[in-house]
Amino acid sequence: MQTLGLALMGTGRMAHVYGPKINAHPGLRLEVIYNPRLTSAKAAAEHYGGRPKDDLDAVLSDPKVDAVVIATPTDTHVDYIEAAARAGKAIYCEKPVDQSLDRVDRAMMTLRDHPVPFMLGFNRRFDPDNAALREAVTRGEIGRLNMLMSWSREPSPPPIDYVRTSGGYFLDATIHDIDLLCWIAGERPIEVSAAGSCMFDPQIGAEGDFDMTMTTLKMPSGALVHINNSRKCAYGFDQRLEAFGDDGMVQTINHRDDNLLRWNKTRTAAHEPLKHFFLERYDQSFYNALDEFHRAVTSGRTPPATAEDGRAALAIALACTQSARTGRAVAPAVG
Amino acid sequence: MQTLGLALMGTGRMAHVYGPKINAHPGLRLEVIYNPRLTSAKAAAEHYGGRPKDDLDAVLSDPKVDAVVIATPTDTHVDYIEAAARAGKAIYCEKPVDQSLDRVDRAMMTLRDHPVPFMLGFNRRFDPDNAALREAVTRGEIGRLNMLMSWSREPSPPPIDYVRTSGGYFLDATIHDIDLLCWIAGERPIEVSAAGSCMFDPQIGAEGDFDMTMTTLKMPSGALVHINNSRKCAYGFDQRLEAFGDDGMVQTINHRDDNLLRWNKTRTAAHEPLKHFFLERYDQSFYNALDEFHRAVTSGRTPPATAEDGRAALAIALACTQSARTGRAVAPAVG
Amino acid sequence: MQTLGLALMGTGRMAHVYGPKINAHPGLRLEVIYNPRLTSAKAAAEHYGGRPKDDLDAVLSDPKVDAVVIATPTDTHVDYIEAAARAGKAIYCEKPVDQSLDRVDRAMMTLRDHPVPFMLGFNRRFDPDNAALREAVTRGEIGRLNMLMSWSREPSPPPIDYVRTSGGYFLDATIHDIDLLCWIAGERPIEVSAAGSCMFDPQIGAEGDFDMTMTTLKMPSGALVHINNSRKCAYGFDQRLEAFGDDGMVQTINHRDDNLLRWNKTRTAAHEPLKHFFLERYDQSFYNALDEFHRAVTSGRTPPATAEDGRAALAIALACTQSARTGRAVAPAVG
Amino acid sequence: MQTLGLALMGTGRMAHVYGPKINAHPGLRLEVIYNPRLTSAKAAAEHYGGRPKDDLDAVLSDPKVDAVVIATPTDTHVDYIEAAARAGKAIYCEKPVDQSLDRVDRAMMTLRDHPVPFMLGFNRRFDPDNAALREAVTRGEIGRLNMLMSWSREPSPPPIDYVRTSGGYFLDATIHDIDLLCWIAGERPIEVSAAGSCMFDPQIGAEGDFDMTMTTLKMPSGALVHINNSRKCAYGFDQRLEAFGDDGMVQTINHRDDNLLRWNKTRTAAHEPLKHFFLERYDQSFYNALDEFHRAVTSGRTPPATAEDGRAALAIALACTQSARTGRAVAPAVG
Repeated sequence: MQTLGLALMGTGRMAHVYGPKINAHPGLRLEVIYNPRLTSAKAAAEHYGGRPKDDLDAVLSDPKVDAVVIATPTDTHVDYIEAAARAGKAIYCEKPVDQSLDRVDRAMMTLRDHPVPFMLGFNRRFDPDNAALREAVTRGEIGRLNMLMSWSREPSPPPIDYVRTSGGYFLDATIHDIDLLCWIAGERPIEVSAAGSCMFDPQIGAEGDFDMTMTTLKMPSGALVHINNSRKCAYGFDQRLEAFGDDGMVQTINHRDDNLLRWNKTRTAAHEPLKHFFLERYDQSFYNALDEFHRAVTSGRTPPATAEDGRAALAIALACTQSARTGRAVAPAVG
Repeated sequence: MQTLGLALMGTGRMAHVYGPKINAHPGLRLEVIYNPRLTSAKAAAEHYGGRPKDDLDAVLSDPKVDAVVIATPTDTHVDYIEAAARAGKAIYCEKPVDQSLDRVDRAMMTLRDHPVPFMLGFNRRFDPDNAALREAVTRGEIGRLNMLMSWSREPSPPPIDYVRTSGGYFLDATIHDIDLLCWIAGERPIEVSAAGSCMFDPQIGAEGDFDMTMTTLKMPSGALVHINNSRKCAYGFDQRLEAFGDDGMVQTINHRDDNLLRWNKTRTAAHEPLKHFFLERYDQSFYNALDEFHRAVTSGRTPPATAEDGRAALAIALACTQSARTGRAVAPAVG
Repeated sequence: MQTLGLALMGTGRMAHVYGPKINAHPGLRLEVIYNPRLTSAKAAAEHYGGRPKDDLDAVLSDPKVDAVVIATPTDTHVDYIEAAARAGKAIYCEKPVDQSLDRVDRAMMTLRDHPVPFMLGFNRRFDPDNAALREAVTRGEIGRLNMLMSWSREPSPPPIDYVRTSGGYFLDATIHDIDLLCWIAGERPIEVSAAGSCMFDPQIGAEGDFDMTMTTLKMPSGALVHINNSRKCAYGFDQRLEAFGDDGMVQTINHRDDNLLRWNKTRTAAHEPLKHFFLERYDQSFYNALDEFHRAVTSGRTPPATAEDGRAALAIALACTQSARTGRAVAPAVG
Repeated sequence: MQTLGLALMGTGRMAHVYGPKINAHPGLRLEVIYNPRLTSAKAAAEHYGGRPKDDLDAVLSDPKVDAVVIATPTDTHVDYIEAAARAGKAIYCEKPVDQSLDRVDRAMMTLRDHPVPFMLGFNRRFDPDNAALREAVTRGEIGRLNMLMSWSREPSPPPIDYVRTSGGYFLDATIHDIDLLCWIAGERPIEVSAAGSCMFDPQIGAEGDFDMTMTTLKMPSGALVHINNSRKCAYGFDQRLEAFGDDGMVQTINHRDDNLLRWNKTRTAAHEPLKHFFLERYDQSFYNALDEFHRAVTSGRTPPATAEDGRAALAIALACTQSARTGRAVAPAVG
């Protein structure tokens, strides 16, 4: 197995997701952990290994670094993408590319001029259940796809500071469902409409944002898509898909920590609550995403989630935002 | 138990639903079966008993007739309602009152002037599972209601002649979900948006109608509602509800003819297909609806589904139709 | 539909089960309610109709009485069977015929001499789910039957006075499973072994009886059968079947009063507790049993659960009792 | 984390199970792969690393070898245990210790004289679901334990040569359930009875062995235990536990490769078949067992599955064999 030397860019929450998975993968070698503040890089390197660095040029000119894993704050992604592309490094970038279509376009232009392998971290595609559902749909198990539904309900709202810089709920959360469902359907919407409310957290409402939304996508084939998002969920991280077609339906089931059924005098055949949140529920998907990246780069194939996929999901999420605010169906600017 | 003498108006499909249930109910006595064509009335009377009649005045002046069950074609409902109200008979009317808001208003005016007991046959409210879900929501089992979802997927499209006079899919099918969900939520939408496609049956599309739709209702409380309708469903009559609140979720489960799980080399823990269609799935609910009518009339209470409920559901369904055609959210004309 | 006039013998618990079902059946007419104490007969007749009688001869010579439904204490069954057979009345007898093989043989001899239609009330055969499982097995859905399992766990122990006269737990409870499983398998055991404990109710142990048992039957085909009985069950009346064969497995699912799934912060996808006990769980089966009786008598067919079936189940239950006491496998005296 | 150097004894099926798991564990280092035939050792070492060896003394005197993992044919286990114990090496031994109680006693005597850490590979204890069920029972979630059930149905019979040397089905398969259930119950049976049939494979019957069995254990507390074994199962490797107590029940659910539900016109809410066999179903448990061994050895604790546990399970399995042959309940020779 060909080994790739990696620079892990960033030391925040997502870097702590990727660090252990890089170490667990036999074909990935953590060479460098980068943070402009050296103390942060050093602290992370103590956990995951790799050389701590605060000098970007040194990282990108390091011949032992074959690829970068960008796990920095969203508004820095494009800068790191451009620098890494110019340095000829393969790039795995946590989603989204950026919250602005203009900046995404700039990054895509740079990638066209400096065609390095690039993969966007739409990790949910690489969850085994989601992938199995897509495969069932693709091989025709339910006939032609008619309706597609996704639930993504988070256990609790994020801190209000996070909400403020998140670009709004559609860009922060719905974008995951959008990418996943377009990938499953094999097409992108010609029209979106969305409705949102703020019922849990008045602070979120005060920012003009929503804490629960329902989104409808209309696909070129006629297929209709529903996305169900909530920023609070009492029983854990509710993650479901339902694909309905001419010949039947496939659904994914939620995950728990154990597989016990409980029977007592108040409730029967009960499961425990769901996996708490995305770190628990999608743990495997992050590993699988890195594995796909490794396989694509070492075999010369195009990685399976592109910058263009990221641009499309962003354009659709922006259209959702506009629809929720205006009460009109919006045609997103996607190919 | 006080007994009510009934005149069953009409001898079509719905009359065949109500006939046996009237006979099974210990407090209802089928006095008359009415059809303007006497041969039809006679044929039905051979099945269900009662005196066959083709003379409306005779039926409505018959002192043994305490109440009428209107199961005639939709466009005749209002005429029979008005005649029965003027004759002082209690009225159970199959839904909808009419497809036109104006005619519904006319019927309501007549009922105001001639205040007889009136109940509209929104039978799904009287299904034990739907009622149990509403009761769980009402007693606060899931905290405040945030999201409400309904699936209603029919096994196969109706004949095109039926489609032509049905008033469109929203008036024909969605109206059931609309009434049920407003009844569960205890409120009516301030805004609706809907999307429709025609994927199965080009004839339906040629009529400008849809064979699958997704509808979103926005409630005054902020609660969001999704309605999922399809005119075809490979695995039977898919009828589900999901109520999501601050403290949890309740869902209803589909019904089958047996309660067996099957395990073989291709599939495990499999159920048989669902109940075929509404006659099989909601059989009990029609009986329960008549029972509610009996109890209301004999005790002097207002029946639990009013003409005003029917007017509201119609107004919302009309708003859905408009939204699906224009791509804009519409505020329905409801109180 | 040909109507049968019935005399309901007895006014105890089982008579209260059969009374309403006789009235609900369009082909059965409750002519007489019999109890040697006229006040008891009168009280029951006020609930269910029929003429109250305390004179057995008058009942059995009444030309309006076509058949008797014997729902008296077990130790009187044989006497009523013999009297009714001699009077030429068709007989539906609540199980068991008797706790003594000798007395059962006596009854069977009388029935041979006076061949009236006779049906034993093994109601669980007529439960729709149990019947569906048998049909799946019979039509070969799981290939050849290899293993068969039955759970029957009751919500709470009966009064100790009932236990004392019940003939022991195997004769009281296991006998139901024995009949059901032999009927499904289409064969009767060549060997039984059983183990019992008394964990809940020391009074039951003091009587030398058990409050939980596990029973194994070995069938002539080689098929193995497990019966799981408990006199206490925290979550309701646990009634399950599992049939395992060369090509797969079928299982029946427990019943509840509603079909809701509940999700909250401690448990997810939870059902409510099971139906409380046999009156709730097997309500339909008693009606179906009477319906089978009606159809057999009016069509001249042999009723589907015979005195010989009752004798076999009793012989097997007695062998179980012996095995649990001696620790040895026992060959029951069955054909 | 303290690292243990391991010698993997044997290169057969179980060695191929342990090899990759040793390599995946950060605290285990595969030093040596031993087989008396050097070519076999070399072939295995090419897969898993480690130095190939055919000289037992050299292996056991190697200071880099802290412990041995015995994965050789069953009839050689005792010899390797004794040699390793005398050499002062910690021992992880695949189950069973031996098929003969005498030889097990001999091994235990040697271990008393040479008290090295010893762990028996009862891997099913270390399956997360089985462990979660035991924990639920232990912390009193169902009150006092009354009944315990285990299903273990294998997808297809082993080769007849394997059957011949397996010691019979109870020693080969039931022994797993016996150990697991005694461990969950926290007690060992005072009496066992078993019934067996041979329905699938006449060759197995010709050896005097069974291909399906039902076993009952009676515990000192009064708790009753049922074990359900089959050497064929159409739908995969059926592995279930059910623990029933005063206050309720807990059950484990079977595992599949995906978590999809399928709905089509013949079956609804269907899962795919089960994990094929023990390598797929219990993959995690083997890793966890090695991890428990590592933790026990490096911390000085007694490993969680002892030679004495193995002796008890063997004695009980031998009693089952005797009971199935004689039709009598047997008191196993356990403490």
